[in-house]
Amino acid sequence: MSAWVLPDHIADVLPSEARHIEELRRQLLDTARGYGYELVMPPLLEHLESLLSGTGEALDLQTFKLVDQLSGRSMGLRADTTPQVARIDAHLLNREGVARLCYCGPVLHTRPDRPHATREPLQFGAEIYGHAGLEADTEVLLLALDCLHASGLSDGVIVDLADARIVRALFAGVPVDAAVLARVHAALVAKDASELHALTRSFPAASRDGLRALVQLYGDASVLDEAAKALKGTPAVSAALAGLKQLAASLGADPARQISFDLADLRGYAYYSGMRFGIYVPGAADALVRGGRYDEVGAVFGRNRPAVGFSLDVRELVGVLPARPLRAAIRAPWSDAAGLREAIAGLRKAGEIVVCVLPGHGSEIDEFHCDRELVEHAGQWQVRAL
Amino acid sequence: MSAWVLPDHIADVLPSEARHIEELRRQLLDTARGYGYELVMPPLLEHLESLLSGTGEALDLQTFKLVDQLSGRSMGLRADTTPQVARIDAHLLNREGVARLCYCGPVLHTRPDRPHATREPLQFGAEIYGHAGLEADTEVLLLALDCLHASGLSDGVIVDLADARIVRALFAGVPVDAAVLARVHAALVAKDASELHALTRSFPAASRDGLRALVQLYGDASVLDEAAKALKGTPAVSAALAGLKQLAASLGADPARQISFDLADLRGYAYYSGMRFGIYVPGAADALVRGGRYDEVGAVFGRNRPAVGFSLDVRELVGVLPARPLRAAIRAPWSDAAGLREAIAGLRKAGEIVVCVLPGHGSEIDEFHCDRELVEHAGQWQVRAL
Repeated sequence: MSAWVLPDHIADVLPSEARHIEELRRQLLDTARGYGYELVMPPLLEHLESLLSGTGEALDLQTFKLVDQLSGRSMGLRADTTPQVARIDAHLLNREGVARLCYCGPVLHTRPDRPHATREPLQFGAEIYGHAGLEADTEVLLLALDCLHASGLSDGVIVDLADARIVRALFAGVPVDAAVLARVHAALVAKDASELHALTRSFPAASRDGLRALVQLYGDASVLDEAAKALKGTPAVSAALAGLKQLAASLGADPARQISFDLADLRGYAYYSGMRFGIYVPGAADALVRGGRYDEVGAVFGRNRPAVGFSLDVRELVGVLPARPLRAAIRAPWSDAAGLREAIAGLRKAGEIVVCVLPGHGSEIDEFHCDRELVEHAGQWQVRAL
Repeated sequence: MSAWVLPDHIADVLPSEARHIEELRRQLLDTARGYGYELVMPPLLEHLESLLSGTGEALDLQTFKLVDQLSGRSMGLRADTTPQVARIDAHLLNREGVARLCYCGPVLHTRPDRPHATREPLQFGAEIYGHAGLEADTEVLLLALDCLHASGLSDGVIVDLADARIVRALFAGVPVDAAVLARVHAALVAKDASELHALTRSFPAASRDGLRALVQLYGDASVLDEAAKALKGTPAVSAALAGLKQLAASLGADPARQISFDLADLRGYAYYSGMRFGIYVPGAADALVRGGRYDEVGAVFGRNRPAVGFSLDVRELVGVLPARPLRAAIRAPWSDAAGLREAIAGLRKAGEIVVCVLPGHGSEIDEFHCDRELVEHAGQWQVRAL
């Protein structure tokens, strides 16, 4: 096999896309910074028990494992950054008050998430630790929308809200093994009413009826009222529904975006423990952003703080955006002539791209679009249109 | 063992340092962009034969290996980005003319390079493909110096020049096994004259005398004239010495930096095939930047193009720079009051950091230094000094 063949679902990012990704990366981090989110950079490699304690089987299967030759212990390549940020909040920062943190870096997956997904997403995310109230949920959602807006995505955005406590409450007190639970989850995600009917046949009436009702509970805000009727009697469910209503209201109205609800939604990370959301944009097959509450993620690091956040893959984001035009550059000759080096340095300092033509390469096609050139005229170096 | 313990030589980057690293990352990439270097993003994982063909044993030992469950093949985590960029130049871009490429991303090492080194450097680098002349060497060196300057490092910089062909030429025709070669290299690096004396005892006279002379050949430009006398007779050596002289001249004089030569220098990557350099700055134990020619790296990908470039570790760079002050932020209340959200959005758009105080957290110490607050006055939201 040729040395240049890459593994499946692993790809180089070539210049035009790399530039766009870099610009998006800066816009996303700057947007989070404008809200007061501090950047952290957790490592790519950690001991397996740090990466995977309490985060579920799916993340375990997605995590590449290797042995540390320094210690002989098993390490994992992070497949998700949130457990690391929870560790930083709990153990390293260990603040009494609110901590707002953001990050942007690669994660690696043993298998692609979807048929055409990369195994090396560039994960950007932002998280608030230390505030249990809905205000944190609201801020995180508004920040996620602002991040998309800064990237150039404003129209046709759909915010899909759910709450992990609803399904959980409907299972309360039902003795069910992991395999059945997984099948019920899959049926809920697929909205497969007949499969769900079969699976819940032996469940207690309240659970059975609740779960069966859930597959229909998606759509606009009227879903919340229907749910209140169909899933009556459980305080956890009532609290979740009230929270979703208030959250939707506090997002405010915006004709460019739509708010919907899908109370059976269970996709994304297994660690979500409360409100959860997905943001859909035109051109993306699945939710581009996923987020929610994960108040229990820090427990393994000794601090069970309220937490809410979101993440997205910058590579997926670039895929749904139109290509950005390249900034035009200036051609300069390669010469020892007096003043040339200073003239070039001055232009570069002013933000221009100046490409020096190496001797013998004058007739090559510019990869940078050069629309001007630097020429000497009466002892002065001047920029002239090409 | 506690879940928050990280592997040795692996560390989180906390907010103040992460911010500084992010700022440096942008300055380095923008500096390279100003010279017309196009950004590429090679993957973290590749098949082992892509990462390691022709790059030497040292890089092999530094590379974490794992098995791809999709293909059953061995993959490596990149320990160096240059072989990947050579692959991109040779196979993906496949341009006839000059290609200028840059990158910035993590690499992983099985073992730390030095006692306190990280095993996860953030490698930034820039490379020119397709030009064999000294102009490319000059541009790459000037760019490396400009990158340090942009980061705030100008004074006390030492550029140390060498050429890999000199040691190679002195070994030409000498039958020597790998173990002896490695010991000779180590003795040259350590400038251990007595060890070198013992090792070269049975070498042909020209090699023996040349290698023994080499340990003394370091210092200012006079080294080149001494070398021309001591290592006379080999065309490859003469060409290398003439190249170094010309390169030093074309860098130009700058009182803030010093140019030195160390013709026995063999540190850094094994793939260097011609001119090579290290840049030393105050506060760094070893060379902060390493670069040189590696005209043979692309051969394994089917294209043996001339290539010259450099790289540095942004984490090491941040370690020798003074901490940067945090930009002051604005505190805002959390409220549904009319106009507040718009006022905050306007300030953020203007580049300000606005931290909303979540309910119940008013008395917490700000992690961001807030020197102003947003208050309502006569129906208007105004920024007031704190």
